[in-house]
Amino acid sequence: MSALTPSGAGPGLESRFLALWGELSEIGRDSSGGYTRAAWTPVDAQLRGWFRSAAAARAMQTEQDCNGNLWAWWGEPGPGAVATGSHLDSVPNGGAFDGPLGVVSGFLAVDLLRERGASPRRPVAVACMSDEEGARFGVACVGSRLMVGDLQPDAARSLSDAAGTSLAQAMATAGADPGAIGADPARTSALSAFVELHVEQGRALADLSAPVGLATGIWPHGRWRLDFEGEPNHAGTTRCEDRRDPMLPLARTVLAARSRAEATGARATLARVAVRPNATNAIASRVQAWLDARAAGTGELEALVEGTVADARAASEAEGVSFAVERESFTQLVELDRPLRERLGKALGGVPELPTAAGHDAGILARRLPTAMLFVRNATGASHSPLEHATTQDCLAGVTALATVLAELTGA
Amino acid sequence: MSALTPSGAGPGLESRFLALWGELSEIGRDSSGGYTRAAWTPVDAQLRGWFRSAAAARAMQTEQDCNGNLWAWWGEPGPGAVATGSHLDSVPNGGAFDGPLGVVSGFLAVDLLRERGASPRRPVAVACMSDEEGARFGVACVGSRLMVGDLQPDAARSLSDAAGTSLAQAMATAGADPGAIGADPARTSALSAFVELHVEQGRALADLSAPVGLATGIWPHGRWRLDFEGEPNHAGTTRCEDRRDPMLPLARTVLAARSRAEATGARATLARVAVRPNATNAIASRVQAWLDARAAGTGELEALVEGTVADARAASEAEGVSFAVERESFTQLVELDRPLRERLGKALGGVPELPTAAGHDAGILARRLPTAMLFVRNATGASHSPLEHATTQDCLAGVTALATVLAELTGA
Repeated sequence: MSALTPSGAGPGLESRFLALWGELSEIGRDSSGGYTRAAWTPVDAQLRGWFRSAAAARAMQTEQDCNGNLWAWWGEPGPGAVATGSHLDSVPNGGAFDGPLGVVSGFLAVDLLRERGASPRRPVAVACMSDEEGARFGVACVGSRLMVGDLQPDAARSLSDAAGTSLAQAMATAGADPGAIGADPARTSALSAFVELHVEQGRALADLSAPVGLATGIWPHGRWRLDFEGEPNHAGTTRCEDRRDPMLPLARTVLAARSRAEATGARATLARVAVRPNATNAIASRVQAWLDARAAGTGELEALVEGTVADARAASEAEGVSFAVERESFTQLVELDRPLRERLGKALGGVPELPTAAGHDAGILARRLPTAMLFVRNATGASHSPLEHATTQDCLAGVTALATVLAELTGA
Repeated sequence: MSALTPSGAGPGLESRFLALWGELSEIGRDSSGGYTRAAWTPVDAQLRGWFRSAAAARAMQTEQDCNGNLWAWWGEPGPGAVATGSHLDSVPNGGAFDGPLGVVSGFLAVDLLRERGASPRRPVAVACMSDEEGARFGVACVGSRLMVGDLQPDAARSLSDAAGTSLAQAMATAGADPGAIGADPARTSALSAFVELHVEQGRALADLSAPVGLATGIWPHGRWRLDFEGEPNHAGTTRCEDRRDPMLPLARTVLAARSRAEATGARATLARVAVRPNATNAIASRVQAWLDARAAGTGELEALVEGTVADARAASEAEGVSFAVERESFTQLVELDRPLRERLGKALGGVPELPTAAGHDAGILARRLPTAMLFVRNATGASHSPLEHATTQDCLAGVTALATVLAELTGA
C-alpha cells in the first residue's frame, strides 16, 4: 500500500480530522466567508487555546516560547528533536487551510504513528509559529525570524498596526512578555529537522493530478513601502495644473509594477493602500502603498524592484509629489535541504517537486537547520482567499505522508 | 469710508473676532495641523455647543430644526426673514476657515449692526447648516437638501459611514430625532434671502488684490462610486495572467479621469479609496473609489463622467474585473439670483464677481429662494487643507461687507 493512501490510516482518521477541523472552523470566521485571524488579537488567543486543547487531548505538553511560538511535545523536549507544524494566523479574509492544515496534520500524524505503535527515537514537536502572515504588523514570519535572530527584538517591538498599537503593546495585552523576545539559539539548535506541511498556493499539483508534493525552495521576496507625499487641496476648486496629487504617481506605479513583473514571469503586487485624508472632495495629501515583489532569482527580483521604484520616482517628480521608499522585509532565495528532500522523496515513494513564491516559517528556519516542506493539492489554486480549498481526501493523504516523513526522521 | 474698511467697524471688532475664533480653534483639531469635524460626532456636538453659547452671549435664541440645522435669531422668527451663515463641520484634515468663517462672520455682523444702532425691519438669523461636507456619510449638504426636500428622509437615514453606522443611528446617538427629518417648507418659505459668506477656495481674489468678492454661481458637480470587483488570491503564488486584480483598472481610471478633466479645464478627482482586504500579500478582491467631478457646464460634466466611466469599464473588462458605478450625489448648475447680486454689488460699492466649483448650502437653497455668496480672499488659495488661510484683516473686511449686505436686505 502506498504511503499516500489514506485508507491505510485506519477508519478513525477521517472523523478525527473532521472533528479538529470543525473546532477550528468556528474561530475567526468573517463576513467574506473566509477567516481573519491576526496575531495577538482575541481571535489569536482562541486559536492558541484550541492548540493547547488539541495537545492536551493527546497528552502532549505545550510550551509557549519567548517569541510566542507554541510547541506541543511527544516525548521529552531535547536535542535532535524533529518538529513539524505551521501557523494558525491568517491574512484578512483568508482561507481556512493556509497554516491550520499544517498544524492539524501534525497532530493527526502523531495519532497515526501512535496507532501504528511507533516508538520514535527522537522527541517530536508539533509547532504553531507566531504571526506568520504579518497581516497586522507588516512583517511576515515574526515568530521564526525572532527565534533564529533574523529580526531584532527592538525592531519587532516597535512594529505597529494600522491603529497605532505596537507589537509590544499587543503582546502585553495578550498576556505575553514583549521584553523576553529575541534569538533562541538553544531551541533552534535542539532541532534536527523541521517539516512544514502546507496547502499548495497554486495549481501545480492539481495539473499533475498529485495529492502531495515536496518543495524545492522558496523564491526570494520582500515588501517595500512607497510613500507619495503631495499637497492637500479642494477637489473642486483646484485646477489640474495646480495640483500635487499623489494618487497619480500611485496609479502609474501600479501599472508599471504589473508590466515589469509580467515581462519576466515574476510577481509584483500593490494590494494595500493608505490614503490621507481619504475624502471624496479633498485631493489626497499622502498615499502610501505596499509593493509585494517576488521572482525566481535574486537578480531578477532586484531588477524588478529597482525598475518599479524608478518608475514611481519619475511619476512622482512629474506631478510635484515627493517620493520615498522603505524596504520593510526581505527574504533571500531559499533552497530547501537537498539531502533531506531526496531522503523524504524516497520514503514517500516519489512525489512531484515544486518551488513556491510564497514565504513560510520553513524558509526562515531553513537557513539554520535541515528543513522540508510538503504541499497538499489545492483544488482551486486560490490562496489568501476564501476560495482556497483542499479536499478531505487530499488532507488525509497529507497526514499520511507527514506520518511517513516523521517516522523516517525519528527512526520510529 | 468704504464698506470694506474694517477700521469702520469700531476697535472692538478685531478682539471679538479673535476671541470667537480662539474658542473654535480648540475644537476638532487633529494631528495634520488642521481640523477633523465630522457630522454627528462628539466634536460636532462641541461645535453645536459653541454655536449656542455664541448666540446666547448675544441674547439670540437658538433653535435646532428637524434636520439638525441651527438658527440663532435676532428678532422674532417670522416671514420675510434674512438668514446668513454657513457650516461648522469639515472634511478630514480640513482647514479652519471653510464653514466656520461664515458662521463667525454672521455673529459679528449682527454685533456690528447693533453697535451702529440699526433696527432691522426683518428678522435676522445666523445659521449653522448640518453636515455640509458630507465627509462622514458621503452626501454633501445633507441639512439643506433635507430642508428643501431634495433628499428623501429614508434615503438620508440609510446613508452609512465607513464603520457601518447609519446617519439615523448617528443622529440618535447625538440626541437628535432621525424620525423627524425631511422637507421643511414653512421654514424655507419664511426666508426672503440667504447670504453665505465663505473663504474663497482658489486664488482669484488674491490675484485681483481684493479682500471680498461676490459669487456668480456654482459649477454643476457630483460624486460617483466606482466598484471594481476582482478575485482574491495570493500575491506571491498567483501568476500575472491568472489574476483578476481590481487595482489595475483603478489605476487606469485615475489617469483617465485626470487627463479628461485637464483637456477641458474641468475637475475630476479620485481621492477616496477602499480596498478589500487591503493586505500586502493578498491581491485585492475589491476596490471602491469615489469620483468627484465638476465642470463649468452640464454637458461638459456629463461628457467628463461618461468618458471616465467608459474608460473604467473598458479597463475592468481587460482584467476580468466586474465594474459598476453609482451616482451618490449630483448638484445642477446654480446661477445665484442676479437681481440680488446686482443689489448687493451696488451696496458694497463694487466688488469682483467670480464663479466657484465648490458646492455650498447656498447652492441648494438657491433653487428655492434668492441667495447670494460673499467670498473672502484666501492667502494661499488652498482649500480642504490645513494650508487654507485668510488674514484677520480680510476676515474683518468680510464681516463689514456682510453687515452692509444684511443692512441692505433688512432695511436696517
